[in-house]
Amino acid sequence: MGRTHYICCLSISMKKSSMKKHNFGAGPSILPQEVFEQSAQACLEYNGIGLSLLEISHRSKEFEAILDETLTLTRELLQIPDNYKVLLMQGGANMQFAMVPYNLLNENETASYLDTGVWAAKAEEEARLYGKTHIVASSKPDAYRYIPKTFEVPKDSVYLHVTSNNTIYGTEFFEDKSYDVPVVADMSSDIFSRPVDVSRYGLIYAGAQKNLGSAGITMVIIREDLIGRSARAKSKMWDYGIYAKNNSLYNTPPVFAIYTCLLTLRWLKKLGGLTAMEKRNKAKAELLYAEIDRNPLFKGHAVAEDRSRMNINFVPVHPEDEAAFLEFVKPYHIHGIKGYRTVGGFRASCYNALPIESVQVLVQAMQDFEKTK
Amino acid sequence: MGRTHYICCLSISMKKSSMKKHNFGAGPSILPQEVFEQSAQACLEYNGIGLSLLEISHRSKEFEAILDETLTLTRELLQIPDNYKVLLMQGGANMQFAMVPYNLLNENETASYLDTGVWAAKAEEEARLYGKTHIVASSKPDAYRYIPKTFEVPKDSVYLHVTSNNTIYGTEFFEDKSYDVPVVADMSSDIFSRPVDVSRYGLIYAGAQKNLGSAGITMVIIREDLIGRSARAKSKMWDYGIYAKNNSLYNTPPVFAIYTCLLTLRWLKKLGGLTAMEKRNKAKAELLYAEIDRNPLFKGHAVAEDRSRMNINFVPVHPEDEAAFLEFVKPYHIHGIKGYRTVGGFRASCYNALPIESVQVLVQAMQDFEKTK
Repeated sequence: MGRTHYICCLSISMKKSSMKKHNFGAGPSILPQEVFEQSAQACLEYNGIGLSLLEISHRSKEFEAILDETLTLTRELLQIPDNYKVLLMQGGANMQFAMVPYNLLNENETASYLDTGVWAAKAEEEARLYGKTHIVASSKPDAYRYIPKTFEVPKDSVYLHVTSNNTIYGTEFFEDKSYDVPVVADMSSDIFSRPVDVSRYGLIYAGAQKNLGSAGITMVIIREDLIGRSARAKSKMWDYGIYAKNNSLYNTPPVFAIYTCLLTLRWLKKLGGLTAMEKRNKAKAELLYAEIDRNPLFKGHAVAEDRSRMNINFVPVHPEDEAAFLEFVKPYHIHGIKGYRTVGGFRASCYNALPIESVQVLVQAMQDFEKTK
Repeated sequence: MGRTHYICCLSISMKKSSMKKHNFGAGPSILPQEVFEQSAQACLEYNGIGLSLLEISHRSKEFEAILDETLTLTRELLQIPDNYKVLLMQGGANMQFAMVPYNLLNENETASYLDTGVWAAKAEEEARLYGKTHIVASSKPDAYRYIPKTFEVPKDSVYLHVTSNNTIYGTEFFEDKSYDVPVVADMSSDIFSRPVDVSRYGLIYAGAQKNLGSAGITMVIIREDLIGRSARAKSKMWDYGIYAKNNSLYNTPPVFAIYTCLLTLRWLKKLGGLTAMEKRNKAKAELLYAEIDRNPLFKGHAVAEDRSRMNINFVPVHPEDEAAFLEFVKPYHIHGIKGYRTVGGFRASCYNALPIESVQVLVQAMQDFEKTK
């Protein structure tokens, strides 16, 4: 015995088009360019260890370091108080629609829901399987154009569920408001887009595929006293307590998806964290809303005061312009602005990773389109 | 307007060590080298479309094609009869431990379980939350060294649950045996390793991260008449019926993980499908078991007739050789052969993608180790 292997590096060549599209897709959506490059490198070989990220054990020291840094950066960027746990699981926000009442609500108890859109309504529907529900307010009769602000939350509600950003209608609220009962927030589409006062919430959940990472991972931030609140016997994979006790490593987690979250969080920190991100997101949204308001060919969907920075929905003043504008923007390499089928028109999703240059191109296209008339 | 963009290709350079490790890890585990390379390329840019795979919509024509081909290849390779559905979901086999009884078993009914290891026992434990369980046989008193073969399945059982390959103990059974009740099989660690007569099963499930793709995706093959069998009102994400009705696209699926499955299935087909794969896996297992039986320093854990081709467990005859051999194999670039903590010794997982050359290197290391004595 006694063979010695010299490990040297091969350079592997990969192809990339020189012209990236401007990706306004609603999700899964654009991530920072360096996340694409670093995750590609990790698929090929992780950190020079002679193995791909896709073939390492979730019990390896390499993955433990990835998980630890992901959780630490999450706590740091959101300034999460010590009495909260950060959990990583699978299944997306839809799974949380069930897991929240399954874990928090007993059969004879009531949970309150604020109905600001399709996702909020789906969350409420799931809760009916586990207890009683009460809808505190709904903007459904007005096509979910606004966020109801004056409502009473019954004091015996176990929690109030809200959807902080409504992707389909382009409404968002930015205030971390306290109520007499714990607030549960679906922040799937605006988490990490601005600083959040986590202490105002009992539970925050978010599917990753907008601002956080690739599809296939979901983050839950939960105040410790709410873990195990409901009395029902729980399946292990549907029990927040199991994730909390096992540091989200009870079973094999989606290693690659978690790594994309880590890369995105590192990028966020490097860019100045959530205050810088909020400034950047405000600038993009203001630029686009200004054009929507100025351009006689377009109008916004949501009321001005509740306009989302993440999903900017607008419709053509003349319905026949819908197909024409979608065709018109193609040479600009604008991708993913077709509106959701129930709202129609256009939706420009401007998640964290979308550069302001993409918004500038869209504004230019809107102005050029106007000139053709 | 009328600008024209010329899209040309940039060559992006990625690094890879020239010496890959021989990865015997139990999972997440080795995948074919071309899967690593093609998934890396897709992270950078998918199929020349100017977007990364990580930023495309799950409703895009690109992802629909990925999903369709994944399901079609699965049906083709396993020759799945028409009255079965193939579903893709998240949460791993642990989630299926709960979803199987939740979807199939009513409270007053009984499900039978064959106890061949820790994972089988965990599956049975979850079923107790949803109905009654009956253990038909258990090899636990003999450290799960064998698969019990003579047992009665009560005729009123809703199903018999089996674990076809037991990763921790290195036992496996290769016969697709029919019983009077539908057989539910956890094939997480041996799916696609040999041809399977799917018609003998009511339901087959498998977490991807052994033979199928990266961690974060789970496959369920279910006979249509079993969908919706239990009467309980179900949460949408825990209901096989929702996945079946929506072609596994009710919510955002883990796009990247599904793509790694597709790449692996294409590789499988190219190599000759499951008959060729079985031959390849037999050759690897025979080579390693022959050395275990020949080498006076090692002995196998499982009884000969139930030896797994996927996880080959062996222990040193002299306990002090355990640490010494783990140290000894390092210069051979052998990775991941430390045994599971409850069994000790060594576990060489030889999943589909492991080349026979890796087994040859391990056998050489065992022989070289013998010479040092």
